Amino acid sequence: MTTLSPLTVSVPDRLLLGSGPSPVPERVLRALALPTIGHLDPAFGTLMDEVAAGLRTTFRTQNAVAIPVSGTGSAGMEAMVANLVRPGDRVICGVHGLFGERMADELARHGATVVRVEAEWGRAIPTAALVAAAEDPFAAMFVVHGETSTGVAQPLDGLAEACRAHDALLLVDCVTSLAGHPLDLDAAGVDAAFSGTQKCLNAPPGLAPFTVGERALERVRDGRVPSWYFDLSLVLGYWTTDVDAPTRARAYHHTAPINLVYALAEALAMVREEGLEARWARHATAHEALRGALAVLDLHRLAPDGEQLHPLLAVRLPDGVDDVPIRGPLLTEDGIEISGGLGPLAGRTWRIGVMGEGANPEPQERLVRALAARLGRDPGEALDALSAGWAA
Amino acid sequence: MTTLSPLTVSVPDRLLLGSGPSPVPERVLRALALPTIGHLDPAFGTLMDEVAAGLRTTFRTQNAVAIPVSGTGSAGMEAMVANLVRPGDRVICGVHGLFGERMADELARHGATVVRVEAEWGRAIPTAALVAAAEDPFAAMFVVHGETSTGVAQPLDGLAEACRAHDALLLVDCVTSLAGHPLDLDAAGVDAAFSGTQKCLNAPPGLAPFTVGERALERVRDGRVPSWYFDLSLVLGYWTTDVDAPTRARAYHHTAPINLVYALAEALAMVREEGLEARWARHATAHEALRGALAVLDLHRLAPDGEQLHPLLAVRLPDGVDDVPIRGPLLTEDGIEISGGLGPLAGRTWRIGVMGEGANPEPQERLVRALAARLGRDPGEALDALSAGWAA
Repeated sequence: MTTLSPLTVSVPDRLLLGSGPSPVPERVLRALALPTIGHLDPAFGTLMDEVAAGLRTTFRTQNAVAIPVSGTGSAGMEAMVANLVRPGDRVICGVHGLFGERMADELARHGATVVRVEAEWGRAIPTAALVAAAEDPFAAMFVVHGETSTGVAQPLDGLAEACRAHDALLLVDCVTSLAGHPLDLDAAGVDAAFSGTQKCLNAPPGLAPFTVGERALERVRDGRVPSWYFDLSLVLGYWTTDVDAPTRARAYHHTAPINLVYALAEALAMVREEGLEARWARHATAHEALRGALAVLDLHRLAPDGEQLHPLLAVRLPDGVDDVPIRGPLLTEDGIEISGGLGPLAGRTWRIGVMGEGANPEPQERLVRALAARLGRDPGEALDALSAGWAA
Repeated sequence: MTTLSPLTVSVPDRLLLGSGPSPVPERVLRALALPTIGHLDPAFGTLMDEVAAGLRTTFRTQNAVAIPVSGTGSAGMEAMVANLVRPGDRVICGVHGLFGERMADELARHGATVVRVEAEWGRAIPTAALVAAAEDPFAAMFVVHGETSTGVAQPLDGLAEACRAHDALLLVDCVTSLAGHPLDLDAAGVDAAFSGTQKCLNAPPGLAPFTVGERALERVRDGRVPSWYFDLSLVLGYWTTDVDAPTRARAYHHTAPINLVYALAEALAMVREEGLEARWARHATAHEALRGALAVLDLHRLAPDGEQLHPLLAVRLPDGVDDVPIRGPLLTEDGIEISGGLGPLAGRTWRIGVMGEGANPEPQERLVRALAARLGRDPGEALDALSAGWAA
């Protein structure tokens, strides 16, 4: 028996039920720790093709380009804007939470004229408001499909038509919705979308799944991208773009984060084994079950019925309940992470992840018990509601 | 005994002696696979402080800012330019290989006026040429300390003085030299430098160690950074900048690549345990030993004496020896990765990594045996030269 040397690094036990990262399955961690091989090794090329195929399935797209950008979710945003938005472009930007605000900031940094279409944090943006903003010529429309800051899902219906009328691109952030909330990029006519690996895919953070359709790729060919690292015309020399010729030679651009790609491949295999629609359904059930249980504890959902994002349940704190005195020891003593509110909702909401492995009865039961105890409440009725929700 | 489910992902056995990634020790892979925790967890904050301290030691700097940028080595280049170079800046750029060319491209994308100071691929740039270019006012000078494309180390002496005369910044790429070749950033007066984790640090790719001194930070405060992801004024709200107040609250920017930070922390612990100067000396010995052994096989070093980069030995192919017919089966049949030449050196050189775990007698002996066999040569004399080099 080999004696392994002790590690310098140690981490505490945590149940990750916050806004992400989500719980990473043991199987994905094992894939992560497979020996590093070279980024130009043909064996790695085969794995890259598998990852691209898995991303296409999960995004529901036939786009040739479906790759993990070498950075966390926001690197996907950066790649999207650097490649597809040019200085002076008029870009409609839906803002109803932190991630819409972030995109508005990013667009301005790239010289775009930003047309903000807003809704209250915690509500979806009315489609009519987005369509109305699309009357004058514009280059692109951006919306956040899953607002991680509020737990709201933004409908995409009707947006592609409004964009096509001006030959504009429809751009989507699906960081928290991908693989956890119904989403069909091709059916919705989305031209480009980015996501993250540390939400419903249950892989470690560090990669940004990103897909770009043909109409959008024309813009990449058009212009000069103000970033070497994110320039798709270079990146795609390495990541295969031609679905009919997946074995063509790959040209070195930057060194891919090899081990993170292993983990993503394994996580995508788990999505495939479960089936995407079954996974969406599980997240919907898990969301409703937990919503019912928390309502018993007077923690009511921020998003109104019909606007909820299944993978992220944001709840209002009851009067008289302070955020940090509960959330702090829940993490450090009970070992359960949930997230606080952001922006105008700081101190007034908790954001609870219902993502992948976290969207199951056992972790939710543990959370309900611990939260009830911290709130000085009996957990019985809430646990009954949780069970009833899962039985429904 | 728990039965673990089989993985979908599998990778072949490889000895990584190319230009990177380098061999990742089992201990670092185990740290990588520790359970993911949250990026705002206080336990992760403690680890971030340890990583920052380890990077300062390895960079030999007192800079407050020493962080891993969330992307591979070239993301460090992107972060450097996005934060420190403004449109219209006159920037002196040393070009004597692929990575100088890459920086010249990147600078132009950011609107800089690029003053190229060149040398032949395979040679260092004469200090006098760089100093001569610094006579007229300029904003920054960039050089590649370790040219991964040629195996050449660029001297830094005298460059800081030339920069100070114009209040210009000295910027350095030390991707392949960090922790493997003598480098003292503060002594050399370097204002900012980036590296990668997959070279002499022996961690997986995906993070770019990056340090920025006070003079350079003033520029970040000056202007608007054309990138949300890399904006140091935002990133530093999350990564502590104040060495005297390491426990202050961390503000969410983007989700750090948690598990890669674990691996980097473990890799930095291994550097600390060995001692930085001892590690440099080991790389110097390993380089000379392998150089001597390969010379016996008529594989002679590209870089002249005194200009060699210890972690990367580039050798010329003898007349009549073709690159791919040797290097291909060396990888796929012998399981040993070395790298081909780039740019004007493609097909004419091999680049052999002497990095971290790879800078040891055992992997080098395996390489020499396999290469000799592929070249149809008896390995005896080359192995003797290798042993003699290590005994010296």
